Amino acid sequence: MTAERLVVIGGDAAGMSAASQARRLKGPDELSITAFERGHFTSYSACGIPYWVGGDVAERDDLIARTPEEHRARSIDLRMRTEVTEIDVAGQRVRSLDRDSGETSWTGFDKLVIATGARPVRPALPGMDAAGVHGVQTLDDGQALLDSLNRTEGSEGRRAVVVGAGYIGVEVAEAMLKRGFDVTVLNRGEQPMATLDPDMGRLVHDAMDGLGITTVNRAAVTAIRTGQDGRVAAVETAGASYPADVVVLGIGVEPETTLARAVGLPVGPHGGLLTDLSMRVVGHDNIWAGGDCVEVLDLVAGRTRHIALGTHANKHGQIIGSNVAGGYGTFPGVVGTAVSKVCDLEIARTGLREKDARAVGLRFVTATIESTGRAGYYPGAQSMTVKMLAEYRTGRLLGVQIVGRDGAAKRVDVAAVALTAGMTVEQMTSLDLGYAPPFSPVWDPVLVAARKTVTALRKAGTA
Amino acid sequence: MTAERLVVIGGDAAGMSAASQARRLKGPDELSITAFERGHFTSYSACGIPYWVGGDVAERDDLIARTPEEHRARSIDLRMRTEVTEIDVAGQRVRSLDRDSGETSWTGFDKLVIATGARPVRPALPGMDAAGVHGVQTLDDGQALLDSLNRTEGSEGRRAVVVGAGYIGVEVAEAMLKRGFDVTVLNRGEQPMATLDPDMGRLVHDAMDGLGITTVNRAAVTAIRTGQDGRVAAVETAGASYPADVVVLGIGVEPETTLARAVGLPVGPHGGLLTDLSMRVVGHDNIWAGGDCVEVLDLVAGRTRHIALGTHANKHGQIIGSNVAGGYGTFPGVVGTAVSKVCDLEIARTGLREKDARAVGLRFVTATIESTGRAGYYPGAQSMTVKMLAEYRTGRLLGVQIVGRDGAAKRVDVAAVALTAGMTVEQMTSLDLGYAPPFSPVWDPVLVAARKTVTALRKAGTA
Repeated sequence: MTAERLVVIGGDAAGMSAASQARRLKGPDELSITAFERGHFTSYSACGIPYWVGGDVAERDDLIARTPEEHRARSIDLRMRTEVTEIDVAGQRVRSLDRDSGETSWTGFDKLVIATGARPVRPALPGMDAAGVHGVQTLDDGQALLDSLNRTEGSEGRRAVVVGAGYIGVEVAEAMLKRGFDVTVLNRGEQPMATLDPDMGRLVHDAMDGLGITTVNRAAVTAIRTGQDGRVAAVETAGASYPADVVVLGIGVEPETTLARAVGLPVGPHGGLLTDLSMRVVGHDNIWAGGDCVEVLDLVAGRTRHIALGTHANKHGQIIGSNVAGGYGTFPGVVGTAVSKVCDLEIARTGLREKDARAVGLRFVTATIESTGRAGYYPGAQSMTVKMLAEYRTGRLLGVQIVGRDGAAKRVDVAAVALTAGMTVEQMTSLDLGYAPPFSPVWDPVLVAARKTVTALRKAGTA
Repeated sequence: MTAERLVVIGGDAAGMSAASQARRLKGPDELSITAFERGHFTSYSACGIPYWVGGDVAERDDLIARTPEEHRARSIDLRMRTEVTEIDVAGQRVRSLDRDSGETSWTGFDKLVIATGARPVRPALPGMDAAGVHGVQTLDDGQALLDSLNRTEGSEGRRAVVVGAGYIGVEVAEAMLKRGFDVTVLNRGEQPMATLDPDMGRLVHDAMDGLGITTVNRAAVTAIRTGQDGRVAAVETAGASYPADVVVLGIGVEPETTLARAVGLPVGPHGGLLTDLSMRVVGHDNIWAGGDCVEVLDLVAGRTRHIALGTHANKHGQIIGSNVAGGYGTFPGVVGTAVSKVCDLEIARTGLREKDARAVGLRFVTATIESTGRAGYYPGAQSMTVKMLAEYRTGRLLGVQIVGRDGAAKRVDVAAVALTAGMTVEQMTSLDLGYAPPFSPVWDPVLVAARKTVTALRKAGTA
């Protein structure tokens, strides 16, 4: 018997989870696995990079879940610094380039996994490639940023400008603050955290102010100005110039699908590969794709989105690995849960924002409440704001956003499960959530929000 | 028009929530509300008493959500220190005794709410009424305990014996530790926290050891020995004697239904009043009951239980208040969620334990995993253990137990919602839970447990 040949493009979460799970189910006699990674690292937590930059995580290697050697020890033929440059779908082979030797070669496959990830959005502006301008997408990016920071270590009054106020932007802002920089966040939108409605983003803005982070809204960057040494000197917007010793780009990412599009694999409206429930690329029986390069079904909106997030990538990899090795798994979709932290501020969302709901033709009511994460009389009780959206007439939960402190963020999980189950906000009012004074008021903030949303439905002449 | 007459027996969470909600919906011209409370306080958090005793909560009044005066200001005729001694169902009236003046009188009602709460279990043992033996059920109890503690303030080597190792017992153990006592917990069962399976209770035992609390299992108290001053001196079990300067009883409670049973109102197998979904007492159109004196439907087991918990009492009151005032609300039941804390140890459960599942004829598999509350590389990541039960064949989630530290307890809410929705553990593996390194590993511990439970189902030849 000849072993079936599995080829994996991309050595981070989705790709190596797929390879590992496939190996768990089938030994090398049954399945050969070749994985290509163009960078220096495998299976690392990109989400952890801001904490490494900020000094909370001491060593780069702490972010690496499994090294190339560990993968190889499990009979995975892992080619590091080797970039796949072409997929030959009909010929069932990929061409790869060894980035060190410059050699190219073809590798045949019976089954192919595309896990090429995402690439940071880098607007084509003057000075964008100057020294001192950094992304935080890969470990290589993180290392470059740290090297840049270390150059200026010890000097006074260092200024960092963070471009973008999404979750990466705010996490990096905290990291730079911890490194002793004066931090300015330039945000193109109306409020930071555009993943929230602006009324909730406003709370984040206020809290960032309180932490000593300057956030400038409606600030579209027009250029990076460099000094005589060629390094970054300032970030320019239409109306102002922000001096900078270092610039970090947290503008977001887009699916890396260049290879796949070159051979006509189907991509969706957000540029990500389209797959079926088993994570197989639509129209291709022997090609799977997962992680940051695919679009996922938003179960609330009923259409696909692009969400670059390690937790999805790991699930995709697990499912793909099972399916390519003759097991069974499906990825039904997401509800859009995201949590983040800037200093002690916790930010969470799941489901649809107001504009998402409108965009898919949903009519809704909203309610916003303020409560505490612990019983009001318990030491350390701090306020949190919960906003809830429910569909008009049906009363179905559509989304929840939370901004608060200790214990705020993970409360969104209750709403994530309720969304998955298609619960109404009326049903949510009787949820049996854990109650004890150190953990919750007698009415959990999520229950208080559900009750107020029920009232809003009633006032809207529905429910 | 004559106002309809509402009478409420019991002035704590359920009773006063009912009264307040009814008043919100109907003014005094439409509805008169008379409420009887035999104690000194209304609307207080009994769950907060251990934290007041332990000194985390400074003042008794911090535990009071609404005073008698505040209730009266909202046109509720509240009779404090007045005990209802008889219900005349046919005559639609209650007899009450003013505990200060000794006077009795009858009050007529059109609608009656019974919210008589629970009473602590006090085994009929020698010495149980000695000075220095305390319950922690009411604010009066808490005050008496604090007075007792203050008597010995400052002396060295004070010893507290806590009888009972349920959530009240462990919370009180922490409180006494904070007060500087040597603390011994006498537990009748195999392990502390009998609300958990013994394997999980063992983890609590070990952690309590680590905190310096001595827990003695299989220790049934036979007597309280008193000294020459009549105060408690020691707690006796069959095999040993435990010297004690103070004894706190945390043995649990039973529904206080003396009044209701005297007139033949229906009680269930656990001694609590039986109600329908609108919280109306079965067979009685104009009598409602809620809070610690009723049984609630366990949605997972499909039968009633008695659970004394403020969060249920508040929900009951809210629903009763709506229904008596012509609104609409139902209480569908509980899934048995409970969380507690002893020092930095967090303990949570929802759904069924192994023995609960067996008792109702369910066959199941279990899986137990260890993970962390944050990404492993993130500072402060601490381990937590999650145990999950799923039904054989259907794979339906039956229960979850969690013992851990920071962020462990409230994770049980995810399972509580999944139980309510009737999810299978396979469905749970794809839940879109919040992920960011400060809040969760890339696979949330609940997801890890769900995955391992799916594997257990598969090995059991099912799923």
